[in-house]
Amino acid sequence: MKSILYLLIGLFSISSFAQIERLEPPNWWIGFEDPELQLMVYGENIGNATPEIDYDGVSIEKFNSADSPNYLFIDLKISESAKPGKFKISFELENGTTEDYEYELKERSKPAENYVGFDNSDAIYLITPDRFANGDPSNDTDESLNEKILDRDDDYGRHGGDIRGIIDHLDYIDDMGFTALWSSPLLINDMKSGSYHGYAMTDFYRVDPRFGTLEEYKELADKAGERGIKIIMDQVANHAGIEHWWMKDLPFKDWINYQELYENGEKIKYSSHKRTTNQDLYAAESDKKRMSNGWFVDTMPDLNQRNPYMAKYLIQNSIWWIETLNLGGIRQDTYPYPDKAFMSDWAGAIMAEYPNFNIVGEEWSNNPLLIRYWQDGVDNGYDSNLRSTMDFAMQSNIVEGLNEDAGWEQGLDKLYAGLANDFAYASPEDIMIFPDNHDMSRIYTQLREDIPNTKMALSYILTLPRIVQIYYGTEILMDDTEKPGDHGLIRTEFPGGWEDSEVNAFTGEGLTEDQKDMQSFLKKILNYRKDSEAIQTGKTIHFAPENQVYLISRISDTEKVVLILNKNEEAVDLDLSRFEELGFSGMEFKNLITGKKMKWEDSISLPQRGAYFLTTKLN
Amino acid sequence: MKSILYLLIGLFSISSFAQIERLEPPNWWIGFEDPELQLMVYGENIGNATPEIDYDGVSIEKFNSADSPNYLFIDLKISESAKPGKFKISFELENGTTEDYEYELKERSKPAENYVGFDNSDAIYLITPDRFANGDPSNDTDESLNEKILDRDDDYGRHGGDIRGIIDHLDYIDDMGFTALWSSPLLINDMKSGSYHGYAMTDFYRVDPRFGTLEEYKELADKAGERGIKIIMDQVANHAGIEHWWMKDLPFKDWINYQELYENGEKIKYSSHKRTTNQDLYAAESDKKRMSNGWFVDTMPDLNQRNPYMAKYLIQNSIWWIETLNLGGIRQDTYPYPDKAFMSDWAGAIMAEYPNFNIVGEEWSNNPLLIRYWQDGVDNGYDSNLRSTMDFAMQSNIVEGLNEDAGWEQGLDKLYAGLANDFAYASPEDIMIFPDNHDMSRIYTQLREDIPNTKMALSYILTLPRIVQIYYGTEILMDDTEKPGDHGLIRTEFPGGWEDSEVNAFTGEGLTEDQKDMQSFLKKILNYRKDSEAIQTGKTIHFAPENQVYLISRISDTEKVVLILNKNEEAVDLDLSRFEELGFSGMEFKNLITGKKMKWEDSISLPQRGAYFLTTKLN
Repeated sequence: MKSILYLLIGLFSISSFAQIERLEPPNWWIGFEDPELQLMVYGENIGNATPEIDYDGVSIEKFNSADSPNYLFIDLKISESAKPGKFKISFELENGTTEDYEYELKERSKPAENYVGFDNSDAIYLITPDRFANGDPSNDTDESLNEKILDRDDDYGRHGGDIRGIIDHLDYIDDMGFTALWSSPLLINDMKSGSYHGYAMTDFYRVDPRFGTLEEYKELADKAGERGIKIIMDQVANHAGIEHWWMKDLPFKDWINYQELYENGEKIKYSSHKRTTNQDLYAAESDKKRMSNGWFVDTMPDLNQRNPYMAKYLIQNSIWWIETLNLGGIRQDTYPYPDKAFMSDWAGAIMAEYPNFNIVGEEWSNNPLLIRYWQDGVDNGYDSNLRSTMDFAMQSNIVEGLNEDAGWEQGLDKLYAGLANDFAYASPEDIMIFPDNHDMSRIYTQLREDIPNTKMALSYILTLPRIVQIYYGTEILMDDTEKPGDHGLIRTEFPGGWEDSEVNAFTGEGLTEDQKDMQSFLKKILNYRKDSEAIQTGKTIHFAPENQVYLISRISDTEKVVLILNKNEEAVDLDLSRFEELGFSGMEFKNLITGKKMKWEDSISLPQRGAYFLTTKLN
Repeated sequence: MKSILYLLIGLFSISSFAQIERLEPPNWWIGFEDPELQLMVYGENIGNATPEIDYDGVSIEKFNSADSPNYLFIDLKISESAKPGKFKISFELENGTTEDYEYELKERSKPAENYVGFDNSDAIYLITPDRFANGDPSNDTDESLNEKILDRDDDYGRHGGDIRGIIDHLDYIDDMGFTALWSSPLLINDMKSGSYHGYAMTDFYRVDPRFGTLEEYKELADKAGERGIKIIMDQVANHAGIEHWWMKDLPFKDWINYQELYENGEKIKYSSHKRTTNQDLYAAESDKKRMSNGWFVDTMPDLNQRNPYMAKYLIQNSIWWIETLNLGGIRQDTYPYPDKAFMSDWAGAIMAEYPNFNIVGEEWSNNPLLIRYWQDGVDNGYDSNLRSTMDFAMQSNIVEGLNEDAGWEQGLDKLYAGLANDFAYASPEDIMIFPDNHDMSRIYTQLREDIPNTKMALSYILTLPRIVQIYYGTEILMDDTEKPGDHGLIRTEFPGGWEDSEVNAFTGEGLTEDQKDMQSFLKKILNYRKDSEAIQTGKTIHFAPENQVYLISRISDTEKVVLILNKNEEAVDLDLSRFEELGFSGMEFKNLITGKKMKWEDSISLPQRGAYFLTTKLN
C-alpha cells in the first residue's frame, strides 16, 4: 500500500488515499541564512499527529496544531551540515497508525548573491499573460476549474494567452530591447469569473493550468535567463481569491481579517482605502484597522499577516518561487494594504537571503512623500527593506505636462519641477517609472492619441535615472480610447498573439505606418539604453524649460546623451549658448532616431514638435 | 566746531558738515554671543581714513575699504569686559585731519533667552499697515519723499494707515484673542510709486515717516508687550528698493546681483522663479544662478548675500531690530530667493543669539517636500536653522476640499489626507498655517462667499497643531470678489480705521449681521485657543471623513476639544460609536459657539452645514 502511495504523492498532488492532502512548501533547499523552515500540513485530523524526522542535520524544533484539527505546523531546523536529499516525515496518527510523507531538500542552483534583481539598467516589459499570446490552445479551458469557458468577445473573460505564448515571443521581447519581464500573476485563480487578471490566487504554489505548468514557467525563466532577461514575479501578500482551498477550512480563527463576519455569512467590511493611515500621526486606531483589515472586494479575503503562521507561510512562499524560478525580482501588489510591520519582515527576510535582489512595491499615489516613505534608506521610523517604489507622481506629471499648454508650473515645467523632487528620495535610480500600466488608461489614450507627445513621454522616461517599465502594446499605440480606463479593454489582445490575428505586431504584418514608426522608435531607444553607461550611471543635468523646449542630459566620461523635448508646432532654432556648462561644444552627436549627425555649436534646429534623442555614440 | 558737531550727530542724522554721512548699525549692545561687530561707514573718501577707538573692551580688529572710496568697513571686537557707554571713533583722514563720531554700546534690556518667539500657542494678526487704521493723519504725506500724495481711491496708492493706528487698536486685537502681530514692513520705502506695501526698502534702519517714527514703533512694541502680544517683524534679505540710498554709490562691484547690467543701464535679468533649483539634484548651475540672482522686479535690486559685507550687514540689521524692538519673531520674505547658504547663516546667527526665538520663512509652495525641506531638524544636507515654514499646502487643501463635492480624495478627504503629511515634518506644530494672507485672495472670496465653509476653514485651522496666522479683516468677511486676487483690493481699508469710515469694525457700528456673527465666531475660538492646553500641547486624533462629516479631536489630560465639520445641507444625526476609542463616553461637552451643553453618548445632532466646536471646558 505504502509503495503505491509514494508513487502517487508528488508536488501539488492530492491523493484520496492519503490522510495528508497538502504539505507546503512542497520542497525546500539547504544553505539559507535562516535555518528555520515551517511546514504547513493539511489532512483530516492531522493536527493530532506527532511528526518525526530522522535525517542528518534536520530536526523538528516544535510542532503546533491549529484551531482547525486538520492542520499541523512543523518547525524544522536545517543545520549547515544538512545535505540535499529526500527523507521521510513520519506522522504518528491519533489512531496509532503512521503515515509517511517524502520531503526533499534540494541543493541551491547558484549562490545567493547571484540572484541579481532588476535595476535601472533594466527596461521591464509588463504583460497581462491572458492577453499577450496564446501559444498553446490546448490549455485554453479546463473543465475541472470554476470558470470553464474561453470568451474572447468578453473583455473580462479568458482569452487563452499563456506561458507558451510568452516563451514563443521571447525573441521579440529581446529584440525590442527589453531586459526584464514582469507578467501579472500566473498562479491559479480558480475563480468563478474574472479569473483572467490573476490577482485572486486560490493556491500560492500552483500555476494556473490555463497558463501552463510549473515546468513551462521554469522553461520561460530558463529561456529568458539565457537571453539575460530577468523574470519578475507578481506576488500578492494582501489577499487571496475567495475560492482559495483553505477558505473551506480555515486553520485559525484569525487566518483572514473579518473572519468572524465571513464565517457567519455576514456582510464583509471593505477596506476604507484611506492609505494615508499608514503614515498619519493622528489617524484613529479604528481607521488604521479598517484600512488594513478591510477586504479589497468581497471575492478576495484579506489575509491576516499578524498571524505568525500566515506570515511565515507568505515569506516562505516568496522564497520558494525565487529559488524555483531563479527570479530576478518581485513586484508586490497593493503594498500599503497588508500589515506594515509584516511587509517590513517579508521584504527583510527576502533581502537577507538575496542581498542583490530587488522588490518593487505598488502604492498608487502621486504624493512624493509616500513614494519616499516606502523606499528603504530613509530615516522615518519604518524600515521598509524595500528597494524600489513606483513613481506614480512622475507618471502623472508627464501626462499632465504634455497634455496642457505652457504656463506657470504647467506644461514642460511640470516635468522639470516634478523631477526636482528626486532630492527627497533615498535612491531615485531604484524607483520604477512607467508611461502606464495594467491598471490605468493606455498612455496613448492618456495623451489623447497624440504621437509626438507619446514619443516625448516614452523617450523622457527612458532617459531618466529610473527603472523603466513599459506595458505590452505601448510600442504599437494600443489604446482604450473607446472606453477610457476600462480594465478589460486596457488589457486587450496583443495582435499576432492568436492564430486568427489579422494584424501581427511580432512580424509587423498589418501594422499601420504610425504603429511601425512607434515600434521602431521605442526599439531604438530601448536597445540604446541597454548598454548606455550615461543613462545607467551617468550624471543628470536638466535645464528649466524655456519657450516650450526642455533639455535633459545624461553624462558619463565617455558618453553624452541629450534629450530635447520640443512642444512648439513650428520649427525652433535652439540657441545652445544656454547649455554651455555641459561642455559639449564642438562634440559630434547623432540623432538616434534619424541617424543624422550634427556638431554641437551655436544652435540646433528642431524642425517639428517632438523628442530629439542625441548621443555622442556615433555608431 | 567739534562740540557743535556732536550736538548735530544723532541716530540717522546726516550732517552736511560731516564727512561721515552714515555709520551703521547706529548703535550696538554688549553681551552678545558673537563678540564681533562690523561697522559700515559712509562718507566722501572715508575709505582712505584710519579709524581709532580708545574704549575698554573694544578693539578694532581690522578695517577695509571697498570698491567705492566712500565706504569703510571696521571690524570691532567687543570683549566680555566691555561696559555699556558712549565712545569716540576717530577717523584720521587722508588730508591729515581727524573726524570723530560718537558711538554707543548699550546694555541689553533682558536676557537672550527671554526673547521668546511666536509658537503654536499664538494666533497672529497680519496687517497691511497702510490699510489698517490711520491714527495720525499728520504723517499721511511727506514732501521730502518720492511718492508724495495720499490717494485713497487708488488701490495701489497710499491710504494713510500707520503705527499710531495700530497702537490705537491694540485693545481690539487683544480682545479678539490674537496674541501676536505681524505687520508687513514698516521700514521706509521711498519709492516713486506703489510704496504702500513696504517690501521695497530704501533704508534698512529707518521707519517710513508715513507710518511714524522709530519711537512710535518702540511704543507699539512696548504696549503690545504689556498685553502679551508678540511683535513679529517682516524682513527682506533678498532685495531692496531701487531708491535705496546705496544704489547711487554701491560699495562693491558685487553688492547686488547683475550689478554690471544695472551700472551699464542694460536690461536687468529677472529671477526665473524656478524655485525648485534650490533642491534639485540635477539643476543646471546657470539655472540656479538665474533663479537666485535674478531680480524680482526691476524696481527691486537683488542683494548679493555672497558678498561677506552684505551678509554681515543683513545679519546685524536683523539683530539690531530684535534688540531695539524686543521682537517676538521675524517673518522673512521670499525665503528661497536669497543665497541659500547665507540664509542658513543668517537664521543660525539669530538663533545662536536668541535660542527661544522664532523665524518663519515664506516659500509659496504646495509641495510638502519643500515645506519639509526648509524646516530645521530634517536630515537633508542643508541646515536651515529655520524653525517655522508656511503651510501653503494645507491652505490649498482646505480651500479645495471645502469648495468641491465629496469624492475619492476630494472634499473633506483632502483635508484629512493633507494633514496626514505631518508625518514628514520635523515639527508640524512649528509650521504656520493661515486661511489667506496679503498675497492671495481673501479666504471669503476663495470660498465663494460661503459662510459655513469659511467657518469650517477658520475653526479647522485654529484646531490644528500649528501656529496660526489670520489676515486683518477676515473676521468681518472682507473680500476681493470684485477683482479676485487683485493685491490692492486684497489689502483694502479696514472699516473704522479712518475718520470718515461709515462702518466701524472696531465698535461693530454698521457691520452686517453676517459680519458681526463671523467676528464673534472667530473671537470665541481665538480666546478659547489662547489658553487651551489641548490645542497647544494635546494629542491629535482625527477620523477619516464619512458621509461628508469629519471629526478631529485635540486631547490633553484635563481638556478635550472636538471639532466636527459637516458638509451636509440636511441635518445629520452622527453616530458616535465610531469614535469610541476617544474615551469620551459620558463626558459633558459644551458647544463653544452656541453655549449649549450635551453629553457624549450614542449620537450627536448636527442640524446644519458648518463647524461644531465642542469642549469639555464647560465655563
